[in-house]
Amino acid sequence: MRLEALVFDAYGTLYDVHSVVRGCERLFAGRGTELSRLWRAKQLEYTWLRSLMGRYAPFSAVTRDALAHACEALGLELAREGADALMAEYLSLDAYAEVPKAFSSLAGIKKAILSNGSPDMLEPLVAHSGLQLDAVISVDELKLYKPAPQVYELAVRRLDVPKERIGFVSSNCWDALGAKSFGFTVFWVNRAGAPLERLGFEPDRVLAGLDEILL
Amino acid sequence: MRLEALVFDAYGTLYDVHSVVRGCERLFAGRGTELSRLWRAKQLEYTWLRSLMGRYAPFSAVTRDALAHACEALGLELAREGADALMAEYLSLDAYAEVPKAFSSLAGIKKAILSNGSPDMLEPLVAHSGLQLDAVISVDELKLYKPAPQVYELAVRRLDVPKERIGFVSSNCWDALGAKSFGFTVFWVNRAGAPLERLGFEPDRVLAGLDEILL
Repeated sequence: MRLEALVFDAYGTLYDVHSVVRGCERLFAGRGTELSRLWRAKQLEYTWLRSLMGRYAPFSAVTRDALAHACEALGLELAREGADALMAEYLSLDAYAEVPKAFSSLAGIKKAILSNGSPDMLEPLVAHSGLQLDAVISVDELKLYKPAPQVYELAVRRLDVPKERIGFVSSNCWDALGAKSFGFTVFWVNRAGAPLERLGFEPDRVLAGLDEILL
Repeated sequence: MRLEALVFDAYGTLYDVHSVVRGCERLFAGRGTELSRLWRAKQLEYTWLRSLMGRYAPFSAVTRDALAHACEALGLELAREGADALMAEYLSLDAYAEVPKAFSSLAGIKKAILSNGSPDMLEPLVAHSGLQLDAVISVDELKLYKPAPQVYELAVRRLDVPKERIGFVSSNCWDALGAKSFGFTVFWVNRAGAPLERLGFEPDRVLAGLDEILL
């Protein structure tokens, strides 16, 4: 079935979070990779835990909490200014190099972002990158994070396209599989060659980069 | 308010999972710690993701899936017999050394296990350890994992004790905080001196071991 819309994850899919890693390394020389890995792991963990607990907090708050925990776990002292500087990196991430060309080859199709990011994080990011999108959808209106099916349903409602005609694109395998479980056609952008997550579903296609997304 | 019942998490709280680490090391010399850490992280991650997706699978299946993923991610070849041997370790874990004495000092109070473990994992484990419990409660009847509040509610119903009179004991900080969010009095057994998780709640007490649990 022909797809009428593509819905993209933001962080790590359209936008390269490498500058966050560089920011960690600038503050804590030799520990940047380790810190950014634990920070990312805790950030996701807290979104899942808070969703299950029914205790939503916006992604900007969850991301700060995860950073504080990661620094404490690694014995790193982070002052308020350091945390502010790292959080600010999220507002001006670069899109991956292949994104503008991929977008122009997809001219006839609706394009949207569906992200855990709170509006205070997504709006400056999208404006900075200049990407043309038909919708920028945050889970914030639902107070629930991916991979809850209600989150993917948001895109169906906002785009007014049935789920059978929506392609979902994410570099996070668990997010891709959550979208597959919901009923989207799913493209997993596996830039790092990671193994498949075992969650009872498989992506429809695995891409090495967004330039491979020819429909 | 006086507590009428104590509800314990099983894995890592009452039962020492160290023999699983030893089993990993026996199969993959020099990689056992790394494998068991990733295995445990994926095991929890899959419980949260499947709960959010509404795609419950029993803990025994999730644990096997997590093991398969962890081995592939680390480039370790695991045959069926190796996986069976590691899974079998879960059925005969030792209780921590201080548990029998702590239990006998708590003679006048109801004691129960509330665990993610599926009945096929919990029944042999409890029988093997000989611990005397008033209830062994698995999330399996709910098809939803911790820290969803419905899970903690299971203990209230099974023990017929109001939540204000139940103490919940876990070595997993996120589990303790999920129970706190639900309304239990919470004891976090922090044997490893880990930093507090930032989830908007704090435990009522932090213990270095179960022998400190004097009510």
